[in-house]
Amino acid sequence: MSHPSTEPQPLPLLGGPPPERRDAARNRERLLDAATELVERCGPRGVTMDAVATAAGVGKGTVFRRFQSREGLMAAVLDHSETEWQAQVLSGPPPLGPGADPWDRLLAFGRTRLETTILHAELIREADRSGGSAGGALAFATAHVRHLLTQLGVEGNLTILSTALLAPLLLPLREQQVDLEQFPVDRVYEGWVDLARRVTRRP
Amino acid sequence: MSHPSTEPQPLPLLGGPPPERRDAARNRERLLDAATELVERCGPRGVTMDAVATAAGVGKGTVFRRFQSREGLMAAVLDHSETEWQAQVLSGPPPLGPGADPWDRLLAFGRTRLETTILHAELIREADRSGGSAGGALAFATAHVRHLLTQLGVEGNLTILSTALLAPLLLPLREQQVDLEQFPVDRVYEGWVDLARRVTRRP
Repeated sequence: MSHPSTEPQPLPLLGGPPPERRDAARNRERLLDAATELVERCGPRGVTMDAVATAAGVGKGTVFRRFQSREGLMAAVLDHSETEWQAQVLSGPPPLGPGADPWDRLLAFGRTRLETTILHAELIREADRSGGSAGGALAFATAHVRHLLTQLGVEGNLTILSTALLAPLLLPLREQQVDLEQFPVDRVYEGWVDLARRVTRRP
Repeated sequence: MSHPSTEPQPLPLLGGPPPERRDAARNRERLLDAATELVERCGPRGVTMDAVATAAGVGKGTVFRRFQSREGLMAAVLDHSETEWQAQVLSGPPPLGPGADPWDRLLAFGRTRLETTILHAELIREADRSGGSAGGALAFATAHVRHLLTQLGVEGNLTILSTALLAPLLLPLREQQVDLEQFPVDRVYEGWVDLARRVTRRP
């Protein structure tokens, strides 16, 4: 099933990408949305190149052309989800985005980070196994926590304190999965809020 | 250079390993000690199978027979160091070993863990790259911190609090090396003690 556009094509902006580039970008976006939905519904193992092609209404060849391999597609899905979450943190609505009290932002950060990590646990593990690095994502999250700790007036070695606050939101799914995956998300979140209170010395 | 033993050979104990097994174990120990010393003196990249053979006074073939490859030798060195540190924690002298106040044991744990991680940073990275897992080492460290937190009367989700306390002693060398390796160990330790005070709600 193809979706020929019936909207009038806007004139290309001076210096903007040519129309075929924009089509390619739109196609890519559509494939990623379809793949993300499949991951969330069936888990990454249920996602084949065929299933993504069918869900996005394109040929399987198109999916391979864009992402080379299933591994490439999964890495792109993870990256896509990470980028969207970062956009919400930087400019989405409060309390995750700007404008809320820094403590409320910290709580929203912890909750959404935990949920995203759990949702994409298998993808993160696959990326780890294939040597992909979560270095960029980690750097963003550390910098954001550091920023909120500064706004909360916390003093000390903020790199170490941020690392400590982030670890339980990331590590369990890589190295302590046996232990922590048995906890429901609410219980992990509750434990993390207690940690955040301790680190920021709140009563 | 070989070291023929001039000591009288003890009679094999009933049910104990036969003499040639004990010789093999002693040989292995001697090679590991030589390799560990070389790692500490020259860094892992300076350690060749040749250098280890020379330092231990055996032929290069012996080193290859025992450890298969340079990678195998490095993994054995890391494992050896980890096992020795765990033995110190479990039954070495206080304050790292049993008998000291739990807060003092926690501080000694943090300090020695940090030093060991820094000393073996390159080995840990090599092991990570070759897919070796630090899962066992992490489980030991988490269980020990959990135990000390219990003794300190800390209540809450101790798995999450232990993960937070451990992270800055492990992670920096994997994922934040650029940032944290510029800090001298005393400064990282000082920041970690502050974290430990916050997590245990000490003034």
